[in-house]
Order: sequence, then C-alpha cells, then structure tokens
Amino acid sequence: MIVVLAGGVGASRFLEGVIQVVPQDQITVIANTGDDRDVYGLRVSPDTDIVIYTLSGSVDEKNGWGLRGDTNNAMQQLTSYGYENWFWLGDRDLATHIHRTNLLRQGKTLSEITAGLTKSFGLQLRILPMSDQPIETHIKTPDGLIHFEEYMIKRQCSDEVQDVIFVGADTAKPAPGVIDAIKQADAVLIAPSNPIVSIGSILSVPGIHEALHETSGMVVAVSPIVGGAPIKGPADKLMRGLHVEVSAVGVARRYRDFLDVMVIDEQDAHLKEAIEDLGIPTVVTNTIMSDSVAKANLARAVLQAAGLHFA
Amino acid sequence: MIVVLAGGVGASRFLEGVIQVVPQDQITVIANTGDDRDVYGLRVSPDTDIVIYTLSGSVDEKNGWGLRGDTNNAMQQLTSYGYENWFWLGDRDLATHIHRTNLLRQGKTLSEITAGLTKSFGLQLRILPMSDQPIETHIKTPDGLIHFEEYMIKRQCSDEVQDVIFVGADTAKPAPGVIDAIKQADAVLIAPSNPIVSIGSILSVPGIHEALHETSGMVVAVSPIVGGAPIKGPADKLMRGLHVEVSAVGVARRYRDFLDVMVIDEQDAHLKEAIEDLGIPTVVTNTIMSDSVAKANLARAVLQAAGLHFA
Repeated sequence: MIVVLAGGVGASRFLEGVIQVVPQDQITVIANTGDDRDVYGLRVSPDTDIVIYTLSGSVDEKNGWGLRGDTNNAMQQLTSYGYENWFWLGDRDLATHIHRTNLLRQGKTLSEITAGLTKSFGLQLRILPMSDQPIETHIKTPDGLIHFEEYMIKRQCSDEVQDVIFVGADTAKPAPGVIDAIKQADAVLIAPSNPIVSIGSILSVPGIHEALHETSGMVVAVSPIVGGAPIKGPADKLMRGLHVEVSAVGVARRYRDFLDVMVIDEQDAHLKEAIEDLGIPTVVTNTIMSDSVAKANLARAVLQAAGLHFA
Repeated sequence: MIVVLAGGVGASRFLEGVIQVVPQDQITVIANTGDDRDVYGLRVSPDTDIVIYTLSGSVDEKNGWGLRGDTNNAMQQLTSYGYENWFWLGDRDLATHIHRTNLLRQGKTLSEITAGLTKSFGLQLRILPMSDQPIETHIKTPDGLIHFEEYMIKRQCSDEVQDVIFVGADTAKPAPGVIDAIKQADAVLIAPSNPIVSIGSILSVPGIHEALHETSGMVVAVSPIVGGAPIKGPADKLMRGLHVEVSAVGVARRYRDFLDVMVIDEQDAHLKEAIEDLGIPTVVTNTIMSDSVAKANLARAVLQAAGLHFA
C-alpha cells in the first residue's frame, strides 16, 4: 500500500502520475482539510475536492480546481443577497458542498462523505481526510488571524505572515485509518504541496508526525520549490514568514526528522549536497509535471527512491 | 391596510392585480408555509418564493414558479450523488434556499428572512409567513402520511386522499404581526388559492381563524374553483377527499363562519343563489386572470366588494 500526503493542485497532478503506475486500490491519499471552511453555510473541502475532481478527469484544468464547464448562477444570485463572492463556487461544484453539508448535518463523518464522493466520481483509490474534526489553517498577520483561503484569495497574500496556526488541531484526532495506513505503508510519499499549510496542517494532527517516525515504509518527499520559487501558490511567502529558506533545502529541513529521501528537480541539482548534509539521501530528477508522461515518470522515480518498482 | 391570505401561483397572479391598484406599502401578504420542506438539507418555502419571484417579475412564467431562464446544473450533479430529482430546483433558485437555510441556522426567523428576500427583490409590500415554526401539510393516504409536495409532484396526485394534516400546527404560533395585521385590516382578501391546503394551512395556525372573526375589515374570498374545476392544481382531488363539493359553493362553505363576501366567476353565476343561501353576499365577475388588465379589474372588483375604492 502506497500512502500519499496531499494538498490540492500540486498533489493532484502528482497523483495523476501515481495512478498511472500504481493500481488505485493500492493507494491511500491522506488529504489536507485545513483549507476547509463554511461558505454560505455550506462546508467546502477544497483539497479533497481538487483531488477527486482531478483524478476523475472532471476538474477545470485551467484553474486546477472546480468542475470543467461549470456555471456560477447560484453564486451570482447569492451575491445579490449580500454575500461576498471572492470564493468562486460553480453550480455543479456547489452540489458537492450541499451534499457534504447535508450528510454532516445527518451525522455522517467527513471520512464517510469523502469515501462516497470518491466512489461517485468512479475512483477506486482511498481518500482519507486528515481528520474528521474541523481544523482550519489560519495565518497570523498584523491584522489578526485570517483563514488561509481568505489570506490567499481575498487578500491575495498581501498580509505580512507572522505565524501559521492550525485552529482545532490540538483536540483533533486523525481520521479512522490514517495512522494505520501510514504505519503499514510500503511507502509514504509527500506530494509537492505547500510544506507550511498543506502538508503542515496534516502534520499538525496529533499522532500523524509520530506515525511517520514509526512507519516501516520509506518516507519520500517531492520538493514543491523549484529554482527558488513554488510551482504554484504562496509557499514562498509563508516560508519566509516562518523564516524557512525558500528552497528544496528549506523544505527538507521541515521534514528532516522523519524523511528518508528527498526528490528535487534537475534545476536544483546544486542543492543535493546541502540536503544530503542533513542526512537525507537526495534524488535529482525532472519534477516539472508538464504532461501525462512527465507525471508518470516522476511517480516512477519517487517510488523507486522509496525502494519500490512498478512497471 | 389590505391583508391577502395567499398560496402560490393563483395567489401571485391575484396579487399582480392587487399591486396595480393598491400601493405596495399598504399590502400585507400572509403566506402559506405548509408546502415548505427540506430538499438536500436546504429549507425550501415554495409559496413565499413564488409570491416574491412573481411580483418582482423574476418568475419563470411558464411554470409559475422558479426563476426565469434558470439552469439546473447543481441539481443534475446532486442526482449523480443519489438524490431524487422530482422537485426541480434551478441554480439561481437554489441560492435562495442556501441563503434561507444559512440564516435559519444562524438563528434568524423565517419572518426576518422573508422580509430580507422581499427587499432584495425590490418589493415594498410586506410578506409574512403564516408562522415562524415549521408546519408541513401532509396528505393522509392508504400508504400513510405523504408531504403535500411529494403527493402533488412525485406521486402526481395519484393517491386516495383520506385527510389533510397540518403537522406542527398544534404547537405553532402565528408569525409576529400576523394577528395584528388581520385584526386591523381594512379588508382581508382570500386569494383564489387551494382552500384545503394553501388557505387551509394558514387557517390551521392557532389564532388566525379567531382573528378573521374579530377583524373589523371585510373578509372577501375569490373562488379558485371555476366551472367545477380548479384553475390550477389538485384542489378538486383534495376537496373530494374531504367530501367538500368541488364548486364555489363548496369553497364558500369552508370559509362561511368568517366570510363576508364571496367573489365567483361569471361561469358560476348560477351558484350565486346557493352561496347567498349560506348567508354570504356574492359578487359575480370575471375571475379568469388572463392578462394584466384582467388581474387589475379583478382586484378592483374584490376591493369594491370589501367596501374599498381604489382608482
């Protein structure tokens, strides 16, 4: 069994490679739910939805999130009732949030709901939210705590980042199956996702960090920072805010206490030595997932770094 | 102040006439909420929405409900998650239900929410739900109790009607302002709505029936039964189920203990004597609301029957 710790867009692209190489029923994704929030009273889980939409071929590829060809009539109408509209929700996508909220109110867990959605979209892999309890990633700024999505989308990452707080993490538990999946994994792959918020929020759930120490499988991370900048998203601003070097070395340092192998891009070959100085063997390969073949090649290289071989 | 007891489509057409004749700020609509139900976990109030959408010129005129030109992408997606789809909800319309549900969960009352929606759609009249407590109209059939909307839409009125039950009415209270509006009205107009379910559910709210006795204004009803059949909807099946004659006479008998004047269509002129035998003065006029002029003429005739004169 392969476990993948996943954020949203970067992780989904990485997973598009993994599912070309590993049978879906041998894959468990542990998804970041720190970006989850209530919009119009509906519970939105951006990262799990991005993974499901992407792997099922339903995603709006231009954005990397939402459903392809979606309309936004409900949102326009909601705006006329006085709601903010910086968080774009299409009509078909809204159905997912209506459904999730409906089932949560009926007492279903986020795990159960996510499993149902995964199946509805025809996927065979297992997607586990990191926790069934709400954990919300907030950015500490001079204006106070701001939900990560608001910081990123509404405020366009313009605030000074003083800290990142995972509200609710203290008392949360890993979702059922998360700890066992990590401990029993043949390999744990850390997708090229934001190390501070996406992977950071998964690591904030009590017990997950320890499980990464205890797993008998290799833990292999792919750096989301290439050539000194993130492929996508505000990882650089958050890393700087937390005084983390914006490079594959900085990422490796975040993960060093449980990481077995780091995978970095060819552009960063010169950083191999610095990462290996941390005691982390480092593989240099093409990590730019420009097309389907590049995605599969990266998945193969990462699995090979974990000591596993797939055709 | 003119009070109108209102169901959905028939009442909205009648109100389109009333607002041509009476300034909106002199009108209070008391709306049936017995058709309200939860769909996908969202609270839907069919009749108040029909009134608001119709009077604001936003309604889908072909159906008489919903918003004109609406799409149904969310509903299609929800169907793929296993939901039933017999209750058509467009995307823009869904925004109304998302908004209502969101505010209810925040502790707002249905009255407050309805007032807000009325204002959002640019209307100046006052629309009061009959009650802020949920009351749901159920049809007693050989298969058990069935929500009125399910009986009418999903089951196409095919069940034998044994009784009509207003679930929750026993312990409900009239919404704030309802009793005062009726008691202080210059006239209470009973729209040509289904007498059993739409008006019947309003009358089921404790205190409303008594207020109709106590009002100093005239109580005038327009028969929704013309030529032995309802203009729209299943009133005939429900009336037969309750052993009520399917005619303007049967309607007048339902309202006789508080009704001052009955307004019937020219086609039913031969029923005037039978209704007057009940002690109810009866006005014969054209009640078929074929166009805007006919609607205004009907409103004028009804107001005149109530002893009021508008230009």
